[in-house]
Amino acid sequence: MSLLLRRIVPASQLRWGASTTAGRRCLSTGSPDTVAETAGINVSKLQITRKNPSTPPPSSSLVFGHTFTDHMLTIPWDAKSGWGSPHIRPYGPLALEPSSTVLHYAQTIFEGMKAYRQENDKVTLFRPDMNMKRMNSSARRIALPTFDGESLLELIKVLIRLDKHWVPKEPGHSLYIRPTLIGTQKAIGVGPPNEALLFVICSPVGPYYPKGFKPVALYGTTEYIRAAPGGTGAFKLGVNYAPGVMPQKDAASRGYDQNLWLHGPEHHLTEVGTMNMFVVFKQENGTLELVTPPLDGMILPGVTRDSVLSLAREHIAGKKRLGNLPDNLVVSERPVTMKEVKEASHSGRLVELFGAGTAAVISPVDRIGYLGEDVLIPTGEGGMGPVSRPIWTELVGRQTGAIPSDWSVPVAN
Amino acid sequence: MSLLLRRIVPASQLRWGASTTAGRRCLSTGSPDTVAETAGINVSKLQITRKNPSTPPPSSSLVFGHTFTDHMLTIPWDAKSGWGSPHIRPYGPLALEPSSTVLHYAQTIFEGMKAYRQENDKVTLFRPDMNMKRMNSSARRIALPTFDGESLLELIKVLIRLDKHWVPKEPGHSLYIRPTLIGTQKAIGVGPPNEALLFVICSPVGPYYPKGFKPVALYGTTEYIRAAPGGTGAFKLGVNYAPGVMPQKDAASRGYDQNLWLHGPEHHLTEVGTMNMFVVFKQENGTLELVTPPLDGMILPGVTRDSVLSLAREHIAGKKRLGNLPDNLVVSERPVTMKEVKEASHSGRLVELFGAGTAAVISPVDRIGYLGEDVLIPTGEGGMGPVSRPIWTELVGRQTGAIPSDWSVPVAN
Repeated sequence: MSLLLRRIVPASQLRWGASTTAGRRCLSTGSPDTVAETAGINVSKLQITRKNPSTPPPSSSLVFGHTFTDHMLTIPWDAKSGWGSPHIRPYGPLALEPSSTVLHYAQTIFEGMKAYRQENDKVTLFRPDMNMKRMNSSARRIALPTFDGESLLELIKVLIRLDKHWVPKEPGHSLYIRPTLIGTQKAIGVGPPNEALLFVICSPVGPYYPKGFKPVALYGTTEYIRAAPGGTGAFKLGVNYAPGVMPQKDAASRGYDQNLWLHGPEHHLTEVGTMNMFVVFKQENGTLELVTPPLDGMILPGVTRDSVLSLAREHIAGKKRLGNLPDNLVVSERPVTMKEVKEASHSGRLVELFGAGTAAVISPVDRIGYLGEDVLIPTGEGGMGPVSRPIWTELVGRQTGAIPSDWSVPVAN
Repeated sequence: MSLLLRRIVPASQLRWGASTTAGRRCLSTGSPDTVAETAGINVSKLQITRKNPSTPPPSSSLVFGHTFTDHMLTIPWDAKSGWGSPHIRPYGPLALEPSSTVLHYAQTIFEGMKAYRQENDKVTLFRPDMNMKRMNSSARRIALPTFDGESLLELIKVLIRLDKHWVPKEPGHSLYIRPTLIGTQKAIGVGPPNEALLFVICSPVGPYYPKGFKPVALYGTTEYIRAAPGGTGAFKLGVNYAPGVMPQKDAASRGYDQNLWLHGPEHHLTEVGTMNMFVVFKQENGTLELVTPPLDGMILPGVTRDSVLSLAREHIAGKKRLGNLPDNLVVSERPVTMKEVKEASHSGRLVELFGAGTAAVISPVDRIGYLGEDVLIPTGEGGMGPVSRPIWTELVGRQTGAIPSDWSVPVAN
C-alpha cells in the first residue's frame, strides 16, 4: 500500500487553503513539525462484518436505484492520519454530524459502474479503471482526498464477491455500483474538509428500456445551464445534479422527456439530461460523420462516451471491424450548434442523435423542442440508427463479457 | 397552521418531473385519486426532548462554526404527508441512509442568521423574515419542499430560548443559526426527493476580526467561476460552495486571502469569496457613488447587502441621517468592470471596496491581484472607508439591538 506524505496545517489556516493535496509518495517540503505521514487505502486492513445473505427480490420488480444489496463498504479519512481501515458491513444508515460539510456545502463526488453476470456465472466489471481515474480527478476539483484507485477497486471486488448472489442473471440486468466520497468535517466553515468518508453501495438494476428502445424527446434548454466555462461540468460532482432537477420538471411539463443542455449565444449542444451526446450527419459526399462535443471543460468525460468513440475509431482504422457499421464513417470531437442540427434536419442530412451513459448505454432521440418548434430526428428500426446500433451491439457485448475484450475485468468466477 | 394541498404522483412519474410544488392553500386540479392533503409545519405538534444544560466554553476560545449548542431542531417531510412533527432534541448525529439524495446529488440549501444578546439580556434576531423568504426561494430552485416561514421562525425562537445561555454576552459575539434543508430520498435516481429533512443547529461565534478590522487582499479570479447566467448563483444552495474551495486554495497559494469572482470577457466584479461586493467611486463633481452589482441572477440577494443599500438610501432620502456619512452620496445597483476599478485606482477616484455578509458584516479590501499586477485600494482609519464605516456603525447597532429598529426581532427577554 502506498503511504501518502501530507502536510498538516492548523485548522485556522485551512480556511484560506494551505495545500492538503498530496501526490503518492511525494516528499513534503514543510518543516518537521508541520509534516505527518498519512496512510493510503490499506486493503490488508479490511474488516468484514457479515450479515446473513438475504434473498434478492425478483429482477422483474426492480426500479432503478431503489434496492440495495446486503453489504456496503466504508473507508474513513482524516487529514491527520489519512485513510483508515476499510470496513465491509451490513447495509445501513450512516451516522453523520448535522454540521458535516457535505450537508451544507455539497462536498460530494460519485461514480456509476456496472457489474455483469455472464452465462457461465462469471462476474465482470466494465472499464473500472476509468471510474477510479475520474473519481480522483473529481476529488481534486473540490479538495476532497485522493486515493489509490487500484486499492479501492480491489475492495469493490471483495464487496461484489460477498454479494455475488445479488448480481442479476437476466439479460440486460446488472449490478449498479455507486462509489461516493463525502466531506464529513464537523464544522460549518467553508474550506477543505479535515474528515471525509468514502462509501460504496450496490443496487441490482434492470434494463433501462424494459420493453425495447423508446426514443426520447428533448427540450432544448436555453433558460438554465448545466455547466459553464470555469465551472465543474467536466467532473462527476454532486453539484452538477441537484440544479438540473427543476429544469427537468420544466421540460416534462412541456411534454419532453429530458433536457438538451445548450450553451452560449450560438446554442451549442453539450449534454442530454445526465448523458453525453452524439449526433450523426451525412456529409455532401455521403460520408457519415459521428460528432460529439469536445472535452472543453464543460463536458463530463463519460466512460460510455469514450467507449463509443473508441469502437468507431477502431472500426475506421480496421483494427476491429463492426458488422453493419458503414465504412464511410468519420469521427469528430467538435462543437455542434442547434443551427447546424436544424439545417441538417431540414435538408435530410441528419442521420441520428443519441445520448450515451452508464445507465441507459445508448438513448436514441426523435425530436428536440427548440425555440417553439420541434426539430425532427430520424430513428431507425427499433429506435436506433445505422451508426448507434452496431456500436451498441458491440458495446453491450463487451460490457457483459459476451464479446471478450480487455475492457471486461473479472470480479469473481 | 397552514395546510398544503399537494398533488401526489407515483414515484415512477416523479423522475420526469410531475409538479410537486404547491402554493399554500391552492387547489389541486388533479383527479381525486391523485390528490392528497399534506401538512404544513405544525408548531403545535412540537416535541421537546431536553438534555441537561451544559456550560458553554469561554467565548474567547470560540472558532467559527466548531462549537454547537445543547439542542437542535428537526422537521421531517415526505411527499405523501407533508411536514411531520417538529422535534427539538439533544444535538447529535443524524442517521442517514447511504442512498440519501443529498449525499449524491447535493440536494441541500441553507441559511445563516445571527441572534444577539443585548445589555439587558434580551435576545434578538436580525431580519429573520429575509432568511425565511430566501430559504423558500432556494427550495423551489432545486425542487425541495417549501414551507411557512413564520412557523419555522417560531420554532427557531423556541430553540434559541431553550439554549439562551449559549448566546454570548461579549461585544461582537453572537449565536450563529444554521437552518438546513436536505433531500433524504432513499433511492439514487436523479429527481425531486420524496423525503426531506429540515434541521436547525446553533453555534456561538466571536467577532470575525477579533483584533479589529484587517483589510483583505483579493485574487481576481478569471480561471474559475462562482456563477453564470442560468445557473444557481442567486440562491443559497450548497452547490455554490464546494466548487469555490479549490479556487480559494489557489488564491491563498498566490498570497491572497479570498477570491474576487469576475464574470465574462469584460471581467465584471460579482462577489467576494462568500460575500456580496460594494465599491465606492468619487465622481468628477466630487459626489460619492456606492455601487454593488445588480441582482441579475448571478448575485446572492444578501441580507447584509440589502441592509447596506437600505441604510444608504434612507440617509440620502433624509429618512434616517447617519452621522459622518457624506451628504453627496448616490447609490447604484449596476455592473462594474475591472477596467473601471483599475482606472479609478490609478486616477485617485477609487474611495473604497468591501465585502458584505452575515459572518464578517463588512470586510474592507486593500488590493486586488489582477492579471499579474496589484490594483491598490485605499483604506481609511482602522481599515474602513468614509462610506462603509458610518454604515457599519449603524448596521451593527441595529443588529445587536443597541439602535432600536424594526429589523431587530425579539426572541426572549
